[in-house]
Amino acid sequence: FSGPLAFSHAEYARCLEDETAAFDIAILGMPFDTGTTYRPGARFGPYAIRSGSRRQRASQGYTLAWGSNPYASGLKIMDCGDVPTIPFDNALAVDQMAVAYATLLARPLASSTSVWPRGALLAKDGREHPRIISLGGDHTIVLPILRALNKVYGPVSVIHFDAHLDTWNGYPGAVTDQSRITHGTFFYIANEEGLIANSSVHAGIRCKLRGMDDIMNDESVGFHFITSDDIDDHGVASIVERIRKRVGDTPVYLSLDIDVIDPGMAPGTGTPEAGGWTSREVKRIIRGLAGLNFVGADVVEVAPAYDHAEITATAAADIVHDFLTLLMS
Amino acid sequence: FSGPLAFSHAEYARCLEDETAAFDIAILGMPFDTGTTYRPGARFGPYAIRSGSRRQRASQGYTLAWGSNPYASGLKIMDCGDVPTIPFDNALAVDQMAVAYATLLARPLASSTSVWPRGALLAKDGREHPRIISLGGDHTIVLPILRALNKVYGPVSVIHFDAHLDTWNGYPGAVTDQSRITHGTFFYIANEEGLIANSSVHAGIRCKLRGMDDIMNDESVGFHFITSDDIDDHGVASIVERIRKRVGDTPVYLSLDIDVIDPGMAPGTGTPEAGGWTSREVKRIIRGLAGLNFVGADVVEVAPAYDHAEITATAAADIVHDFLTLLMS
Amino acid sequence: FSGPLAFSHAEYARCLEDETAAFDIAILGMPFDTGTTYRPGARFGPYAIRSGSRRQRASQGYTLAWGSNPYASGLKIMDCGDVPTIPFDNALAVDQMAVAYATLLARPLASSTSVWPRGALLAKDGREHPRIISLGGDHTIVLPILRALNKVYGPVSVIHFDAHLDTWNGYPGAVTDQSRITHGTFFYIANEEGLIANSSVHAGIRCKLRGMDDIMNDESVGFHFITSDDIDDHGVASIVERIRKRVGDTPVYLSLDIDVIDPGMAPGTGTPEAGGWTSREVKRIIRGLAGLNFVGADVVEVAPAYDHAEITATAAADIVHDFLTLLMS
Amino acid sequence: FSGPLAFSHAEYARCLEDETAAFDIAILGMPFDTGTTYRPGARFGPYAIRSGSRRQRASQGYTLAWGSNPYASGLKIMDCGDVPTIPFDNALAVDQMAVAYATLLARPLASSTSVWPRGALLAKDGREHPRIISLGGDHTIVLPILRALNKVYGPVSVIHFDAHLDTWNGYPGAVTDQSRITHGTFFYIANEEGLIANSSVHAGIRCKLRGMDDIMNDESVGFHFITSDDIDDHGVASIVERIRKRVGDTPVYLSLDIDVIDPGMAPGTGTPEAGGWTSREVKRIIRGLAGLNFVGADVVEVAPAYDHAEITATAAADIVHDFLTLLMS
Amino acid sequence: FSGPLAFSHAEYARCLEDETAAFDIAILGMPFDTGTTYRPGARFGPYAIRSGSRRQRASQGYTLAWGSNPYASGLKIMDCGDVPTIPFDNALAVDQMAVAYATLLARPLASSTSVWPRGALLAKDGREHPRIISLGGDHTIVLPILRALNKVYGPVSVIHFDAHLDTWNGYPGAVTDQSRITHGTFFYIANEEGLIANSSVHAGIRCKLRGMDDIMNDESVGFHFITSDDIDDHGVASIVERIRKRVGDTPVYLSLDIDVIDPGMAPGTGTPEAGGWTSREVKRIIRGLAGLNFVGADVVEVAPAYDHAEITATAAADIVHDFLTLLMS
Amino acid sequence: FSGPLAFSHAEYARCLEDETAAFDIAILGMPFDTGTTYRPGARFGPYAIRSGSRRQRASQGYTLAWGSNPYASGLKIMDCGDVPTIPFDNALAVDQMAVAYATLLARPLASSTSVWPRGALLAKDGREHPRIISLGGDHTIVLPILRALNKVYGPVSVIHFDAHLDTWNGYPGAVTDQSRITHGTFFYIANEEGLIANSSVHAGIRCKLRGMDDIMNDESVGFHFITSDDIDDHGVASIVERIRKRVGDTPVYLSLDIDVIDPGMAPGTGTPEAGGWTSREVKRIIRGLAGLNFVGADVVEVAPAYDHAEITATAAADIVHDFLTLLMS
Ligand SMILES: [Mn+2]
Ligand SMILES: [Mn+2]
Ligand SMILES: [Mn+2]
Ligand SMILES: [Mn+2]
Ligand SMILES: [Mn+2]
Ligand SMILES: [Mn+2]
Ligand SMILES: [Mn+2]
Ligand SMILES: [Mn+2]
Ligand SMILES: [Mn+2]
Ligand SMILES: [Mn+2]
Ligand SMILES: [Mn+2]
Ligand SMILES: [Mn+2]
Repeated sequence: FSGPLAFSHAEYARCLEDETAAFDIAILGMPFDTGTTYRPGARFGPYAIRSGSRRQRASQGYTLAWGSNPYASGLKIMDCGDVPTIPFDNALAVDQMAVAYATLLARPLASSTSVWPRGALLAKDGREHPRIISLGGDHTIVLPILRALNKVYGPVSVIHFDAHLDTWNGYPGAVTDQSRITHGTFFYIANEEGLIANSSVHAGIRCKLRGMDDIMNDESVGFHFITSDDIDDHGVASIVERIRKRVGDTPVYLSLDIDVIDPGMAPGTGTPEAGGWTSREVKRIIRGLAGLNFVGADVVEVAPAYDHAEITATAAADIVHDFLTLLMS
Repeated sequence: FSGPLAFSHAEYARCLEDETAAFDIAILGMPFDTGTTYRPGARFGPYAIRSGSRRQRASQGYTLAWGSNPYASGLKIMDCGDVPTIPFDNALAVDQMAVAYATLLARPLASSTSVWPRGALLAKDGREHPRIISLGGDHTIVLPILRALNKVYGPVSVIHFDAHLDTWNGYPGAVTDQSRITHGTFFYIANEEGLIANSSVHAGIRCKLRGMDDIMNDESVGFHFITSDDIDDHGVASIVERIRKRVGDTPVYLSLDIDVIDPGMAPGTGTPEAGGWTSREVKRIIRGLAGLNFVGADVVEVAPAYDHAEITATAAADIVHDFLTLLMS
Repeated sequence: FSGPLAFSHAEYARCLEDETAAFDIAILGMPFDTGTTYRPGARFGPYAIRSGSRRQRASQGYTLAWGSNPYASGLKIMDCGDVPTIPFDNALAVDQMAVAYATLLARPLASSTSVWPRGALLAKDGREHPRIISLGGDHTIVLPILRALNKVYGPVSVIHFDAHLDTWNGYPGAVTDQSRITHGTFFYIANEEGLIANSSVHAGIRCKLRGMDDIMNDESVGFHFITSDDIDDHGVASIVERIRKRVGDTPVYLSLDIDVIDPGMAPGTGTPEAGGWTSREVKRIIRGLAGLNFVGADVVEVAPAYDHAEITATAAADIVHDFLTLLMS
Repeated sequence: FSGPLAFSHAEYARCLEDETAAFDIAILGMPFDTGTTYRPGARFGPYAIRSGSRRQRASQGYTLAWGSNPYASGLKIMDCGDVPTIPFDNALAVDQMAVAYATLLARPLASSTSVWPRGALLAKDGREHPRIISLGGDHTIVLPILRALNKVYGPVSVIHFDAHLDTWNGYPGAVTDQSRITHGTFFYIANEEGLIANSSVHAGIRCKLRGMDDIMNDESVGFHFITSDDIDDHGVASIVERIRKRVGDTPVYLSLDIDVIDPGMAPGTGTPEAGGWTSREVKRIIRGLAGLNFVGADVVEVAPAYDHAEITATAAADIVHDFLTLLMS
Repeated sequence: FSGPLAFSHAEYARCLEDETAAFDIAILGMPFDTGTTYRPGARFGPYAIRSGSRRQRASQGYTLAWGSNPYASGLKIMDCGDVPTIPFDNALAVDQMAVAYATLLARPLASSTSVWPRGALLAKDGREHPRIISLGGDHTIVLPILRALNKVYGPVSVIHFDAHLDTWNGYPGAVTDQSRITHGTFFYIANEEGLIANSSVHAGIRCKLRGMDDIMNDESVGFHFITSDDIDDHGVASIVERIRKRVGDTPVYLSLDIDVIDPGMAPGTGTPEAGGWTSREVKRIIRGLAGLNFVGADVVEVAPAYDHAEITATAAADIVHDFLTLLMS
Repeated sequence: FSGPLAFSHAEYARCLEDETAAFDIAILGMPFDTGTTYRPGARFGPYAIRSGSRRQRASQGYTLAWGSNPYASGLKIMDCGDVPTIPFDNALAVDQMAVAYATLLARPLASSTSVWPRGALLAKDGREHPRIISLGGDHTIVLPILRALNKVYGPVSVIHFDAHLDTWNGYPGAVTDQSRITHGTFFYIANEEGLIANSSVHAGIRCKLRGMDDIMNDESVGFHFITSDDIDDHGVASIVERIRKRVGDTPVYLSLDIDVIDPGMAPGTGTPEAGGWTSREVKRIIRGLAGLNFVGADVVEVAPAYDHAEITATAAADIVHDFLTLLMS
């Protein structure tokens, strides 16, 4: 019951300050939540997800569903702590996150042998970079992440699990540059900056929209979408197939907003939408994505003030474990 | 994050007092919960559902599942506030609700053109009446609603989503007339009064019964029933088909007890029963009912004292949005 | 709303002290939780399950799903209260439970006519013994139960609903005999003692493992396993078939860890694992087991400190009702 | 951790049905809450207070503050269960409670020797009657209690701990006889019926009023009042003195609304008012009342849906223990 | 139980847009919380305080402690709704609040006769301005308020109830201008801008400090301080005396951070500190301030996600009622 | 908002394994809770207290009440992590804790100069030993602590803040040696073993007792007691005086059960008793103990499953900060 030093009791280092910290996959907290439009509190998301991982550990990381244990792979998984982010100035905080992410991304692999040869082919510099699993924080954190990834890989496809599109171009009253950067608009800005490949896809969408304009805008940002209802109409296999086809062999970034799960089962989040997927459904779809060229991943929007008995945190930590396995698939 | 003036920030008026308030569809709160057999608190249901609707608004009311936005239809949707109901004398409160409902039902439509031509054919007076979506309160509120509807339409079919039959003929010890009126017996009384057509149907039933007698009694009150397990055995399409066949082209009243959703996902209610439907399943079935001759609808039994992080309220508000769309289908 | 004298307002007696108490099926609380590896609190499980059963009663015990009412069967169902268990010395507590269980098991049936003729054939002494439905308490309580059952029936098959295997052979640091006895190791010890037939089966497994060794160890303890994902891949019918085939016509003990249900819907438990079954799914599988030779059953690991609005307790009480019906099938 | 058979594990009987049940002091639940003006749920008050008493027991009932153990006095303390009250018809329910209370009040003492000789002097029939400690339920229950007491003792003084006066003469809209009976008006009606002596006193008052009219009305109902602020201005000793002087040697009924405690420390109630007393202060004042001619007592308005970790229930159960001691003082 | 249109069911208008809205005292929500250093969520504070005021109403606004009813004074009290504040850009949001506050402050009084003659003497323009009671929001909102007040009154004394000084000159890492503006630094900036008179005072201080430097800095910002312990050492009368002496007959702004109350009694806030005052103590001190030259007031830092059963919201709404009375004293 | 590496972000080491870790004062978690008689969960106490300390840090550790900052004293304060304790075998766990405590106690001071010269005089070996502040865990942990201290100092006086005596000699049914060791009996056993000086004292006592026997037994164990009511009757100064006189200049161990605070303000504990002290009162009494010869201290019985919004954890962490200052007084 010891305090959480690190995700799943993994090795811990403040990698940003400690340049000797060597890893192949980093867990990185981004306690930023001032891009939130409704219920804040995702700044405690990294803390909550680590708490939710307390019953996970490297020695007991084998899952029947995957048939493997990511901690037994030989790769070095390290919890790199949190990025210090200022909660009073979003432009500054976004910069802090971009710099931090880029810094870790530039670190050499811990492994002396090749780990992601396809990743090297996709990188502009032709070498293998570590993978980072980010713990949000609200969804805004993906903007600095995409900025950092862009420097290494150029535009990436995004597989985006969410109840919401997050491709809006701004909220009423957001008249300043800074106020354009939010957890509902970061993909729009990312596309403006050329960070997203036109082979991206949303999964689990069910939010209300302004109308067809939103859908056309979404398309122009680079996304297709799969609704939460599609699982009933078409089934998991079809969803997996559509996602795989869409991203193909491009470099892929995987971003999971915990609100893709139904709020009845994962209440600890800021903008709940009824009619979502179960955690079992989400995990099944994730398993279907094995073998794609993932260059990074995140779980965002975990807001523990609205959680109960750590059910959301447990699900989020479990999904991070799936991501670890997925990155090695 | 502003306080809820009205459901989904719609226009608000105290329509009962303000005769100039014009609407096609009214949202009407009925904060009555003294017909409850177990956990009370649904008196705060209207308040909770409006709170749960704070992230909904007219300008963003388009849903992918329906492909339309009810607020963009040209019809006037208005939140008419709450009926003042006395919590100390159920007979008096039921009268208050019947009078209030009848009053609003008698108001002219706001639209100058025909909205529900089939509705006019079904009405005794041959004219179009507004639709009212009632926010309970406990399920007893349907008795005064059916009384008011009966004066306009005669007996109506009821599509009733609920874990419970609500057709019992009384509880032990209920020796007075007044104590017969409860959230488990209102349909029985409604049938005694000739308010229910023998083409009604329950959906989602899973409560425990006294035995076959309950089923025969239920039949005599005018209902067929679909159990929560039928969705696994027969599927959504079959359930939709059975409901549509059952009510045909009669005038239909739609009543949804939030306990039709599994209490694990919608805990904020008074008489929870394990093994229910998910909100996604309920919403799918609702969509299957498009085009029936609805004359009114309600969501009842939301008791926020037992809710967590507004998950029940969010689901209820979302279903009200579906009802708005459905009434225009 | 009266206080819970007994499960579902059944007849109550402190059967252990009161030798005149006559029953065919006993409900027996085992408020033991000091075998827990993570969140304790299942000592209040019997209390919580009885609270969760307050809306159940004999006169209204008919379920549509089963088409029968266990209280109308003629069998005598009695709530026998709780076994006094010491929370400071697990070896002593396990003995207390074994003695108590054996005591009740040895009691004559209340019914004057034969109830479980097949049960008599399976018993070493050739006579019919009562059935006991135990309310945990943590899962450790199954060890003393199996010890008591063994004296009557010899080794029994176990149908085990759980997210976890519970067949581990010990935790690190458990260097004493007593510390081997836990809610994750009791099956291992039971097998060492020859209490489990090699025809047992887990259902709902999804915990993380140490690797293939755990699976081989599990096999050696006598179990096959069905994962939570199997319901999507193979369906309920296949799961039911596999379970029935596995146990055949052996004497069967049925043990249900409430964590088999997804923690999003049943949060009140100690070691939650994402991706579980819904209560509706669990209840369907249970119904598929009708007609097997059950010699006892339990619901364990209900920890109300982590529950919300009694959703876990309501589900557990509902499952106990299913078990009552199942024992008469 | 066994389920609560009875308050503080005392002997239990359904005294209303079981005429052989003999007692000197009865604990009697009144699960009535349909006289509530705001948050309902006090129907679960008796259940909650019994739950809150689980760590109390006769053998460990000695308190340092009183220097005695009420269970060691030789008097027979019995938990008489709950009065069956209908939640749909307040007039009927009030009758049910009056009849039940009168029934128990008329029972002979269990003790063969004199217990309350002064009580006998005060009773119209000159004999000793049992004392009943009622567990509410909302405050309305005091009306039927006073009706029953009146038949035995004539008008009684009331010592009334509450944030509210409860002497209002009706709520707006309460146009029927039945709707006059509420948890805020019962004292007014009791006075109309001549049940209250003009030597009654409120303690802990801090609610907002309509103005001086309320105070004059309150006076006319028979009360003086002590505000919550008086404890700071005048101290406990002065408060005790004023209460004792006010009631003198009249027969006294003691009624404690749990909202007299600050809602920050006792949140589980329906109409919370900031600025209340602590439980330590309340208990001190109660101890100051030793030796008065108490003819009955209650703790009301415990609504567990708003409680947390049983803090309100624990305080209420503790106060009931004080009342037991007080009745023997 | 109707939804909260307005604080205490007062008259409601969107005064910022509706120039015809006339008032003497305005209630104004400022749902801003992105200046928070720890737990966010005070953006829902205005909503929560209005919810907590639902049991208050003008017709029942007389308090025994004050001996008056602010709604019966003849002054027009109006709920002016919320200032629209952007949650993504603090500099912009602070401007929005300053403009909104100044706008309302400039409105003429509703009363045709003189209300605050001394206020007119203190105002630069020699006329009487309305008073505004602001509902936070985090404490940062006081910076724009002081900016707006300064234009009317010049520097004002501040009576500041808080566990914290809020006079720090910045947080580590706050390297941009915008990031200097926080709920812990706004007084420092206000002093830089000459908005605070050197006759201000904190009450209830108990936070941990960096050392004597903090105290000297605090002094230089214009404050003396009264610790939470001073109430035990010196008593309420002494505290009141010190505050009154300190501010004298200067124009006074009153700001109350709800964390001045002990978090055990008012948990719904962001930066809780053990050892605080009770709500009764806080209310007593407030009453001691009657007759000072108040030019405005606020209650801030109510974060309902951390509240329970609305105990914090109820206390906050009660204090706002005290402020209404105080402004008329 | 970073995860808690250590109490108040202090330096962290697993001191038990890391012999190079040097400290003067160690914070040591003891996540043991299987000695609990009622609500378990204190095993998460160390985790909760560290979480509750997240807003504390060395650089901001100056308190007005003490006028000093313990982290600025030059002494080395280190969080030494948790003792691994087995939850299945209390005898084994108690040994684990005794060995761990003794190990750290034997470590040399980090400071090169004398820190506690009087401590050296009291120690059998005449040298200065580090001080350890233990984070419980249930109160049983004090038995192994006293065993370890005894080897260094011989019998020590105990200042014991608690609602309960914890000097009972056993619970009914505790027939084995192991089951004698509980959170209510550890002082009795400690006295049997000669670990407690007959100059010990309880403060805050208010639990119910078996009678005068308990008091005489308590006296024989070595304690005087101060009740929670004594603060009203005699005041803080008197309480402080009695404690100081009682322990004199003996070596003193300070143990604080969080249930000494009223459960209304600190609900996160296992055996709540109404009528306790406020955190402000407790902290005041602690300050009165400055200058005694403390040889160690603890805060125990924090059970976060029953806490709300970390109010109990915040109070506990704040008290640990007071203890750090006290140890340097
Ligand atoms: Mn989202
Ligand atoms: Mn998102
Ligand atoms: Mn219903
Ligand atoms: Mn229902
Ligand atoms: Mn399990
Ligand atoms: Mn298990
Ligand atoms: Mn009352
Ligand atoms: Mn009251
Ligand atoms: Mn503050
Ligand atoms: Mn502040
Ligand atoms: Mn204690
Ligand atoms: Mn203790």
